[in-house]
Amino acid sequence: MTSPRIILLAHGSSDKRWCETFEQLAGPTLESVDNARIAYMELAEPSMDTVIKEGVAEGSTDFTIVPLFLAAGRHLRKDVPAMIEELEHTYGATIHLAAPIGENPLLGQAIRDVVRLQLEQTRA
Amino acid sequence: MTSPRIILLAHGSSDKRWCETFEQLAGPTLESVDNARIAYMELAEPSMDTVIKEGVAEGSTDFTIVPLFLAAGRHLRKDVPAMIEELEHTYGATIHLAAPIGENPLLGQAIRDVVRLQLEQTRA
Repeated sequence: MTSPRIILLAHGSSDKRWCETFEQLAGPTLESVDNARIAYMELAEPSMDTVIKEGVAEGSTDFTIVPLFLAAGRHLRKDVPAMIEELEHTYGATIHLAAPIGENPLLGQAIRDVVRLQLEQTRA
Repeated sequence: MTSPRIILLAHGSSDKRWCETFEQLAGPTLESVDNARIAYMELAEPSMDTVIKEGVAEGSTDFTIVPLFLAAGRHLRKDVPAMIEELEHTYGATIHLAAPIGENPLLGQAIRDVVRLQLEQTRA
């Protein structure tokens, strides 16, 4: 069984600096997970449509979307599931929506480490 | 020199589940950093005003706000600095706005680890 293609989903923004931060956040994943991609829900490219279409053209039918969101709001509860349903219909793909990254305890631990570094810098 | 009080700043939402996720994200920090607090920019309590007022009443004058945001958008570039300026004036406090957590490389590494766990679960 092959692994699903991983799509890191960010909200998207017309502000390039915002998108650059997400590209940096995605960097370690894109470097270490084969065929992983970043996609934006709106306002930036590549869109989910672009990335799924590309994956299907390359022979993938199974995708897992990992939301680069700290918590689930309206977008992840309503908008993204509706977009996924349409993409599955359009491309004959299976698309699984994972929990937002912020629901994983690893994130809370990383935040604690960021704060500790912050305090060390303040003291320095 | 005493350390500044750490305030973990989340956007806030009228959706209780959203706030609960942020409280869990803040957990490891609140448990390991003395006097650290979570505060919400809007739509939920405690607000920044509530937390700064409480800190000042307890004798603190120096605060560092660590935004629980993955990237800086309009809120962190405009709205929060304006709120901070007003709070500094109101309470005679010094409030430093740190970079959003997503700009620290530790977050990208945590995301990679979350994705790896996700793939292991898919294979299981």
